[in-house]
This record gives sequence, C-alpha cells and structure tokens, in this order.
Amino acid sequence: MNIREVKIIEVAPRDGFQIIEKFIETEKKLKIIDMLINSGIQKMQVTSFVNPKAVPQMKDAREVVKKSIEKHPDFEWTALVPNYKGAELAIESGIKELSYVISASEAHNMENVRRTVEESFKELKRIREDFKSTKIKLDIATTFGCPFEGDIDINKAIKMIHTGLDMEIDEIFLADTIGVANPKQIKEVIRAVKKEFEEIDFGLHLHDTEGMGLANVYAASQLGINKFESAAGGLGGCPFAPGAAGNVATEDLVNMFNKMGVETNISLAKLLETTDYIKENVKSNLSGHLSNVKRKV
Amino acid sequence: MNIREVKIIEVAPRDGFQIIEKFIETEKKLKIIDMLINSGIQKMQVTSFVNPKAVPQMKDAREVVKKSIEKHPDFEWTALVPNYKGAELAIESGIKELSYVISASEAHNMENVRRTVEESFKELKRIREDFKSTKIKLDIATTFGCPFEGDIDINKAIKMIHTGLDMEIDEIFLADTIGVANPKQIKEVIRAVKKEFEEIDFGLHLHDTEGMGLANVYAASQLGINKFESAAGGLGGCPFAPGAAGNVATEDLVNMFNKMGVETNISLAKLLETTDYIKENVKSNLSGHLSNVKRKV
Repeated sequence: MNIREVKIIEVAPRDGFQIIEKFIETEKKLKIIDMLINSGIQKMQVTSFVNPKAVPQMKDAREVVKKSIEKHPDFEWTALVPNYKGAELAIESGIKELSYVISASEAHNMENVRRTVEESFKELKRIREDFKSTKIKLDIATTFGCPFEGDIDINKAIKMIHTGLDMEIDEIFLADTIGVANPKQIKEVIRAVKKEFEEIDFGLHLHDTEGMGLANVYAASQLGINKFESAAGGLGGCPFAPGAAGNVATEDLVNMFNKMGVETNISLAKLLETTDYIKENVKSNLSGHLSNVKRKV
Repeated sequence: MNIREVKIIEVAPRDGFQIIEKFIETEKKLKIIDMLINSGIQKMQVTSFVNPKAVPQMKDAREVVKKSIEKHPDFEWTALVPNYKGAELAIESGIKELSYVISASEAHNMENVRRTVEESFKELKRIREDFKSTKIKLDIATTFGCPFEGDIDINKAIKMIHTGLDMEIDEIFLADTIGVANPKQIKEVIRAVKKEFEEIDFGLHLHDTEGMGLANVYAASQLGINKFESAAGGLGGCPFAPGAAGNVATEDLVNMFNKMGVETNISLAKLLETTDYIKENVKSNLSGHLSNVKRKV
C-alpha cells in the first residue's frame, strides 16, 4: 500500500523547544510558529501546559497559545497536557485538541509524569469526562523501547489503546520516544496494532537518535501510515529520557516525501527559511540533515 | 525478499580520509584499518592510487597498502584507481581488486577524472586487458543524481553496465555519490537494473546527505541487495562533487541490520571503539548517528 498524501504535524514549538535551556523569547516563538504555518504546516503542537518549575521553557504557554490563535483562528492547534490542571489551562486558552502522553513503560511513565500507568489513565478519564467537546489524542510513549526497561512488549501498547478507546479517546499516536526503533520492528508493531484495531488510523511520533528516523517513516508509509509528528530542524528530545535525540526533522520528512511523489502540501523552501531562522535565533547546530546542506535544493 | 546476511565493505580509509584536509599520519591510518578489521569488517577499500597533487591525503597509498597486506595477508583488500597508472601502482603494491569509477553524468566524470565517459571506458579496457588476474569492480557514480546535471536517466547506467560486462568487469556497484536518492527511486533503479541483468549481484554505495541513507539501504535490502559500501563514523564526501555529505556510517548500518536480525558478522561495540578513536585522532565531529549517542548500546 503506497500512500499518496501525508499529514505532518509540527511539534518543534513543544517537543523541540522544551529541551532548549535558554528561554526563547515569546516573540521569537511566535515568529517561528508563524513561519511554519506560512510554509504550509496544517497542524501544530504549539506548547505544553506543564508545571513551569519542571519545564521553565513553557512558562509562556498561555500567551503563546492565545496570540497564536488570535493570529490564525482557523488553524488546527494542539497542546500537550500532562494532567487535569494542564488540560484546564489549555482549554481556557482556547485549545480544542489535547495530546496526553502515557508511557508503555511503567518506569518511563513514572520518570515523565510521576505516576503509574494506571494513575495516568484515571487522570485521562477525568479529563475525558469533564471536557466532552475537546478532541483528545493519546500518545503511547516508549512503544518501541524504553531507556529504563529496554524492549517493550507490544501487548502493553495494545492494552493501553483498548483502554483509551473504551474511554472515547479520539486519536492514537505511537511514539518512539528515544529513537531506538528499526524499520522491521515498525512494521511488526503496526501490523500487530492494525490487526487488533482495523478501523483506527494511527499516527507515529519518531525520533532520529540512531539515523533510522526516515527509514522508519518509509517502512510505516509502506503499511499505509500517513500521519507523522516531526520537528523543524530535528529539534527535540525528552528531558526525562536519557539518550534521546531530536525528532525526525520536518524538512527531511517533507524532502523525502516530495522526492517520492507523496503530497505534503508544505513548501520545502519556506521550511528551510524557518530552519535558518531557528539556527540564528534558537539553536545553531541543528541535527536535521537538509538544514545543514549547503543550499541549492 | 528479505536478506539474512549482508556484506559491508568499509571505505573510510579511502572515501572517508580523502576529504580530510590535514594529513593523517600513516601510523594512525594503519591503526584505524587494524581496528576496523578487528571489529569484523571483511573487506575494505583501503586507499586510492591517485595523483598526490590532486589528493595529497593519499600520498602514502603504497605504504598503507604494503603494511596492511603484510599484517593481514588474507584480508580482502581493494583500492580505488582513477586510471591505468593507478592500477599499475595498486597491483605492484599487492592489491588484487581494483575499484574504478565512471560517472553516469558526463559533467561529473569530467570534474572527477578529467575525461569523457568514453575515454574512461577506453582506459578501463586497457586495465582489464593488461591485468587479467586482477578483479575489477566498476562503480557507476551519480547513478541517482548529479550535482551538475541533476536527474540522471537510468538507461545511462544500464548502457554502462553492458559496456562493463562486455569487457569482463567482475562486479558492479551503483553509487549515490552526492546522497540525493530516495527509497522509491532506489527501488525503481534496482528493479530496472535487475530486469536487464538478472544474473548480476549489484552492490550500493550510498551517502547520507539528506538523512535518507538508512532508508535507502532498507529499501534496497527489501529487493535482495546485500552488499553495501559505508564508512565508519559517516566520514566521506566527494572533493569533486559540491554538496555531498559523508557516506552512510558503517556503525549505523550495522546497528540497523543487527536490530533487524540481519547478520553482519561485525561487532558494533568494537566499531564504536574505532569511531571513538577516529573522533580523537582524525575528526571530532562525525556525521554518523550512533557515534554521537551517549553510549550504552
């Protein structure tokens, strides 16, 4: 099955910025968000409503969201929330879709949100019940491997997807949080999950720690997966997952799909202007590939 | 078709070292070659017999070859030669297999070896006729795209393969010299070439300029390709091809195949000791991925 069109969800303003130690001025964040939208990005995880003590970079989450929505009211905004409080704040700020992360690994879930997987689901249930008109996406972190527990049994993710769907979660993404998946495993996991949930369109969130990011995207696309989260410049990493490198770079993803004749609806040239801006204003050494090639794309 | 075993040909001592401006002491080169062999590498392009004025890094080609063969007489050594003179020198030094590069792009061939494609083949014919007991591999450069001519018609490579086989060349590798191939194209090219030459086992030489290196390897492996050239640390690049980045990193390739259950016969741990040595002694910022991950593989 070859896909003809792909939906790329930009996560640099959340997953990408969260590991930048120096605070990025809100105006610069808004400028990057703006440039990303102008490049054709159609959906963006714009921030996370986390405790500013845990992730100081996100202390301006409300302002970022409000100004972003003000400027682009019809854009598909999402925000990550780790708990009920975050969900409340996000929705108050105007967010209509939440991303909520639970890890398939108990150890990583504890490290990430200081809760057991069961406690995470209880919290998710409260959010689901209290905010009925909000779209909720469940991200299953460390589906492909955990920095603490190593290999993760795919049945854990399958059980979690069942639990999520039972409480009417709207969308499921499988995440290779630390970037250890390989193309064969990607296919095995997708086949197992598709067999159990025939009617669901899953998305993938991949990191490029070991250079297999695009190989994994390609493998997934061969099985019809057509929703991917990525970050401009290959920014990203998990502050609570040692060894994780950046996300698959949006511009590398767009370039691969362009070359393969798969529609992204994104301008590579404008995306590269954005990564140039990120290089100058946020992080000079980007891990993405195309942003480091001497231009003439 | 899934492959079970792969043969990785290490090219760092040639393709990798040639773009390092500062001369690497011969003893260091020999140390790296030694470490690579100890990691399990079974075949290596150990140097190139080029004009030292064009590539000063290779001025010690004869010494490197002689000492390497002295220490590892049964190892499968190859060397790159750009012309008859180089072939003579390589064979005098004890090399039993030559790599000879002709580009599918006239413009790149001219830039690379200052000859037309036809002239390159004439020279190859002389080499073939005069050194009958030497194995000769023909590398078809820029098969997947050229920095000067852009897209390359696959029929050019097919015609060149015919010419090569007609003069009894022993082996053919297709090279993505500047790293612009994508997995779909890799499959199209391999299918076209396999259709024309059913009985030939082709190999691939890939660069990782746009992050698709491993995706391309994976795509090729799906069609049964099981011979790949790569360079430890992702060293490499073509001095006569602007924009080209390093080769696919051997350790990244080994890691992917290990994870996919494809036998490489190479120790990843020992390979990473080698890239550590390369970092300390040759180039601190390697473009490979795994060599940059905080260890605990």
